[in-house]
Amino acid sequence: MDPVFAGWFSLNGNGEMTGTAWIEESGFLEGPISITNTHSVGVVRDAVVGWLARRPSAQPWGLPVVTETYDGLLNDVDGFHVKAKHVESALEGARSGAVSEGSVGGGTGMVCFDFKGGIGTSSRKLDAKDGDYTVGVLVQANMGQRSELRIAGVPVGREISDLMPCVSDPKLAHEFTGELPRCADSAGKSESGRRGGMGSIIVVVATDAPLLPHQLRKLAVRAGLGVGRSGGHAENGSGDLMVAFSTANLHAGAKKGVRSIEMLPNGRLDPLFYATVRATEEAIVNAMVAAETMTGASGVKVFALPHDRLRAVLKKYNRLEKGRRRTQSDD
Amino acid sequence: MDPVFAGWFSLNGNGEMTGTAWIEESGFLEGPISITNTHSVGVVRDAVVGWLARRPSAQPWGLPVVTETYDGLLNDVDGFHVKAKHVESALEGARSGAVSEGSVGGGTGMVCFDFKGGIGTSSRKLDAKDGDYTVGVLVQANMGQRSELRIAGVPVGREISDLMPCVSDPKLAHEFTGELPRCADSAGKSESGRRGGMGSIIVVVATDAPLLPHQLRKLAVRAGLGVGRSGGHAENGSGDLMVAFSTANLHAGAKKGVRSIEMLPNGRLDPLFYATVRATEEAIVNAMVAAETMTGASGVKVFALPHDRLRAVLKKYNRLEKGRRRTQSDD
Amino acid sequence: MDPVFAGWFSLNGNGEMTGTAWIEESGFLEGPISITNTHSVGVVRDAVVGWLARRPSAQPWGLPVVTETYDGLLNDVDGFHVKAKHVESALEGARSGAVSEGSVGGGTGMVCFDFKGGIGTSSRKLDAKDGDYTVGVLVQANMGQRSELRIAGVPVGREISDLMPCVSDPKLAHEFTGELPRCADSAGKSESGRRGGMGSIIVVVATDAPLLPHQLRKLAVRAGLGVGRSGGHAENGSGDLMVAFSTANLHAGAKKGVRSIEMLPNGRLDPLFYATVRATEEAIVNAMVAAETMTGASGVKVFALPHDRLRAVLKKYNRLEKGRRRTQSDD
Amino acid sequence: MDPVFAGWFSLNGNGEMTGTAWIEESGFLEGPISITNTHSVGVVRDAVVGWLARRPSAQPWGLPVVTETYDGLLNDVDGFHVKAKHVESALEGARSGAVSEGSVGGGTGMVCFDFKGGIGTSSRKLDAKDGDYTVGVLVQANMGQRSELRIAGVPVGREISDLMPCVSDPKLAHEFTGELPRCADSAGKSESGRRGGMGSIIVVVATDAPLLPHQLRKLAVRAGLGVGRSGGHAENGSGDLMVAFSTANLHAGAKKGVRSIEMLPNGRLDPLFYATVRATEEAIVNAMVAAETMTGASGVKVFALPHDRLRAVLKKYNRLEKGRRRTQSDD
Repeated sequence: MDPVFAGWFSLNGNGEMTGTAWIEESGFLEGPISITNTHSVGVVRDAVVGWLARRPSAQPWGLPVVTETYDGLLNDVDGFHVKAKHVESALEGARSGAVSEGSVGGGTGMVCFDFKGGIGTSSRKLDAKDGDYTVGVLVQANMGQRSELRIAGVPVGREISDLMPCVSDPKLAHEFTGELPRCADSAGKSESGRRGGMGSIIVVVATDAPLLPHQLRKLAVRAGLGVGRSGGHAENGSGDLMVAFSTANLHAGAKKGVRSIEMLPNGRLDPLFYATVRATEEAIVNAMVAAETMTGASGVKVFALPHDRLRAVLKKYNRLEKGRRRTQSDD
Repeated sequence: MDPVFAGWFSLNGNGEMTGTAWIEESGFLEGPISITNTHSVGVVRDAVVGWLARRPSAQPWGLPVVTETYDGLLNDVDGFHVKAKHVESALEGARSGAVSEGSVGGGTGMVCFDFKGGIGTSSRKLDAKDGDYTVGVLVQANMGQRSELRIAGVPVGREISDLMPCVSDPKLAHEFTGELPRCADSAGKSESGRRGGMGSIIVVVATDAPLLPHQLRKLAVRAGLGVGRSGGHAENGSGDLMVAFSTANLHAGAKKGVRSIEMLPNGRLDPLFYATVRATEEAIVNAMVAAETMTGASGVKVFALPHDRLRAVLKKYNRLEKGRRRTQSDD
Repeated sequence: MDPVFAGWFSLNGNGEMTGTAWIEESGFLEGPISITNTHSVGVVRDAVVGWLARRPSAQPWGLPVVTETYDGLLNDVDGFHVKAKHVESALEGARSGAVSEGSVGGGTGMVCFDFKGGIGTSSRKLDAKDGDYTVGVLVQANMGQRSELRIAGVPVGREISDLMPCVSDPKLAHEFTGELPRCADSAGKSESGRRGGMGSIIVVVATDAPLLPHQLRKLAVRAGLGVGRSGGHAENGSGDLMVAFSTANLHAGAKKGVRSIEMLPNGRLDPLFYATVRATEEAIVNAMVAAETMTGASGVKVFALPHDRLRAVLKKYNRLEKGRRRTQSDD
Repeated sequence: MDPVFAGWFSLNGNGEMTGTAWIEESGFLEGPISITNTHSVGVVRDAVVGWLARRPSAQPWGLPVVTETYDGLLNDVDGFHVKAKHVESALEGARSGAVSEGSVGGGTGMVCFDFKGGIGTSSRKLDAKDGDYTVGVLVQANMGQRSELRIAGVPVGREISDLMPCVSDPKLAHEFTGELPRCADSAGKSESGRRGGMGSIIVVVATDAPLLPHQLRKLAVRAGLGVGRSGGHAENGSGDLMVAFSTANLHAGAKKGVRSIEMLPNGRLDPLFYATVRATEEAIVNAMVAAETMTGASGVKVFALPHDRLRAVLKKYNRLEKGRRRTQSDD
């Protein structure tokens, strides 16, 4: 697997992303990016290393990128249920094309602004005059306090303050979930700070624009701005880690041992910055919109963001645009 | 002057903030923070050094913090009009209490979202249970593309797309301002990307919460999120630099050469993060609200954000709250 | 386990140290530091997480520090022989007191300046006037080109240019080890650049001096200087990662939710810097001096640094001090 | 002036290097690097900005790199004797070719390992197989404690412990220099820690190898290792700042707005690392060897490193190689 240029940014480092020292040092991403839960980083890393070792490659070692968000509210995180075979299956099954969203893969047990979160994606295509490049964003969204949620600038979290996570089956509750109210009692209740110490979001930004490593770090930083616009404040318990890569120089030629690569001048970066901010903001919304209500191994119930109420709130604030599918209206 | 703990963050490094290597290394801010225009950083730095050298101090050298945004659209920036006496006057005249906002001091020639910008301030007081701490924010706001401006989440920039900077007196125009339309022709015109290569915002965050240097850097990062929420995307030409300091350990005692200092646990930081994000977002609005229309030395006219139209737009999006002074409604 | 203040530094990021985003963000180290080989980082991390999860602790998740150097020259690295039980045994067996050096633990398969490397330790006690603090250093030393080795400033690597790694049993050789000469042919041979793409050193610095996180990062940086003085040039293939922690504020009290901690003023740091540089330089020597010649699973033979020849070289350069145990003569 | 790729590193940030936020963000160095004393950074910066503003350039603003070391021991630093005309003269007078060394330019008032320091240079040419590239290093050397000085690994500072800075004319002494002994009393005296709070070294690394910004930062880091090998420990009072740039892509072409640039693969960097470490170590020696004894405005006398005694010490440690010009013997 050829390396691609990459950069990363830690908006709040309460999380793990292996391989970042090497991205920063080498400027390269040299294999898949894997996203899992906090306590499965190890098994996933070893499985990726094993998978890479079995591939024809000149390089006898690997420093793969494996990253995570915490799913202990819904998942039996200390059960260590992720196995090497799941990783291999994911790597072998990777395909081009549309990505499943919501409660899938590493996103299964995610909670976002106290609604059900998960995997979300979004992309932007630049105008021809800006180079016709594409920016694609994938998030594993698990962060945020309800009261802070903004969608298209609208204070959705203030308007939908009920439907908070609650204990559906107290027999399954453990010490940690015991802090949550019983579901019967939870109606209308929105307490900020409820999940202090947890949360997190991973943002992966991919582009075909010919960016160098230090320019890709810039996209990772702008992904952080997208998180902020949705109401993520990089709370103390949140590991908000961003990685960006470019496929543009994948097959760069070389002459006498010197590679010939392409670089977009800094003066042409703004459209990519805008695309990154917007796609990140939208991908977070898409993660919530795609997810469905879930009751976890802990007996905790996390509600999906109700589509009808979301529409009603957007309408109340005059931000529901007819005939548009998009919830993100600043494009 | 006793040092205070400090931290800094570069959201986009297209700007100058002297003294940052020392803040990062020492954890201290050891004198005033001065904010000027891009081409006056030197004279201000030397004046501060001279001023510090004349004060009784054990330390024979100085690495002061002087930072800047670019005012070449309105000001005769290559005229080097800032002199040492202005700096000394500012330092001698510094007083506690309310700070003037709008087109004052370093903020005189600022342009923000293509409206007149300048100095803005805002602060938040935490609840007693959160420690009763104060977070104060001062911005010198000079960044942003009109189309991106969000106030309280409302797309104000899209709604007020006229009143763009224009050339009022073509006889004064120089090569650079010549790209702008004549004022008569500028009505209703909003082009994004107009001021590529310029812009910038400086954010100073002050608190009395007992934070260590690495915690103060966190506040500086959250100030960046506040910029993003207002529509600043850290465009390529924008130097978006943040510095945060705490007065809490100013008079920390020492025993046998070891200082006794106080530290807020990380678990109690979230209210400070929220305060920083909100105060930054509000300070940017305040800078624009306080500023008045100005025609510069270059014959360029930059319009003030019209208060009545701002109110009308906020009302259209149901975000004008009666009886509230605040434009920032998420508190 | 109470957290301790910590800082880290990447002299060259061609390696993995998990948990660094959290050290940098929080300022804390919240559990053991584990050092293994490159391909066992995952299993070790999961084992540490499991071990932490079984301990009484308020925190339901873990971001442990696991770091590595590559041992593929001697070890069957893709055999994944490190198991969770080895980690648990190491954690349960951890004791105060002298640490075994040489080819032990993660250091078993290490190669350092083309001699047998491994675990090395060294420490310095500061004078009473400097605070009576201790600095202890542990390295897993696996880096360096023979020609570059300096001990006490003496060009030992130039003087002992034979005894290079060689293939002892060609039947066991794999693609990678095949680049090495047969042992019979290797006498007197020293090629720089032989092991391009490998190498690495991990340095752990521990102190009881009351340092804040940003000050501990300084010690980690000085550990890098110690590596450089021994002849490590942070070669491209080398992951040279340093972490430093202080036990001083382990039991810091708190009043009304604010911790009272101690901090050594920056002006008193120099003796700690000197101690760190020297102990790092010495720990690298100690790792080589303690190790014995080894033939690995790959049939590769790596020679121990011969004590008698080392003494002869030091004597040639007038650096063998009678009656002193130390090889590091600058103290 | 076309920009060149650049990177920087702060080994110890007790110093000023303006323009670093922009180097880090843009990857570019966009004008001259100026080195002066601590209190003249401002006047030099403004003069460079003015000089750039008078040149034909598309860019109406400047963020120049101006850096410094402290010369208050010898120079009347608060007299602010550096004027814009000196800067303009230096810029206009810049020529290709050999650079003056010792007590010249910004190096005039430097003190290095308690000997007279100043400007030093050194370079290395790589073998044809390594690309035939050149690495040139210039230092303004003002750091170090006598006891720590190593030349070619030899403990020169321990061997020449007399000739310490002393007060030659007490009538000129000020509060600060008063700590030094009278010259008559200084024979044989070497106290470590004498100049706590001062020092510093600036290292500029230039190469024609085609390196990207993140690779140039690597060279800056290796320059730090060169400082360490000479006995600089990045003491608390020392601002040890390194900047590296490459001229290789100065005239990179562009096609449809995308630049075509060359990049040396990471796997070919080691010879450049070695060259940087060695040239830095040698440039520091050269700065001292070229400088002559000086008595400053403060009445303080700083001795030149005595060539004959240096040779004697090198001979004692068997490091004086006949017929070689080089003092740095590891090449």
